[in-house]
Amino acid sequence: MGVVEGRTWTEMLSPPVCSQLMATHPIGRLAVIVDGVPEIFPVNYAVKDDTIVFRTDQGSKLRGLIQSPVVSFEVDMIDFEHRTGWSVLVKGRAEEISDAVALREISSQPLDLWIPAERSVWIRIRPGQVSGRKIRSRPSDDVD
Amino acid sequence: MGVVEGRTWTEMLSPPVCSQLMATHPIGRLAVIVDGVPEIFPVNYAVKDDTIVFRTDQGSKLRGLIQSPVVSFEVDMIDFEHRTGWSVLVKGRAEEISDAVALREISSQPLDLWIPAERSVWIRIRPGQVSGRKIRSRPSDDVD
Repeated sequence: MGVVEGRTWTEMLSPPVCSQLMATHPIGRLAVIVDGVPEIFPVNYAVKDDTIVFRTDQGSKLRGLIQSPVVSFEVDMIDFEHRTGWSVLVKGRAEEISDAVALREISSQPLDLWIPAERSVWIRIRPGQVSGRKIRSRPSDDVD
Repeated sequence: MGVVEGRTWTEMLSPPVCSQLMATHPIGRLAVIVDGVPEIFPVNYAVKDDTIVFRTDQGSKLRGLIQSPVVSFEVDMIDFEHRTGWSVLVKGRAEEISDAVALREISSQPLDLWIPAERSVWIRIRPGQVSGRKIRSRPSDDVD
């Protein structure tokens, strides 16, 4: 059970619920500072041993991760029809996976890539703070 | 017509197409630096006179916007069934709307709020750079 905030119709989600929701999703959004500006990159990801893993290649995303390894990763599901949804935000530290054993193991991970491009760099985010919230349906159906 | 990148199956979207896609969507994601960490906040928004407007209240989002007004705003649509989607990223400068005339005008804007909370502060993002991309269906139906 989450905690219901009095102020709004949002329900805070517990870390185990957040983890469970993240495991159901193939796409998340990485927020990383690139040349001083926070940017958002949608990526295909997987959760492995409590870390978030994804692949990338040379480009602004990787440059940002090297410059500013403290990042956020957001996963959400929005139900436009019922005007509800949930969002999970993970703050953590990103690092390139360079250890050969870890790389071999992680390469066998089924990562559901929607874009079949060559992406040679594996990144792992070690979660620090995890938070989530859900927009609950309102008690009545009037929508304004 | 977008430009097809050779390297991946993504298609770059032109700024007019990006604007058109943004106009169809009630929810976007704000990336803002809060205490040195890039965070993502889903928000209900509207597009008015080529600016992105949304409401907020006192909290970490507003603190971040005041500390670091250069932000990104991302809108996307993901089609899980067909493994396609599009994403638009706007980089720009956020500012509080404090002018009385502008506030009156903007308050009459139909903003599709999913959470009926009191949010007293109106924020506007003046877009600088706008970019978008689309994951195209692959030529064949094999998905790996």
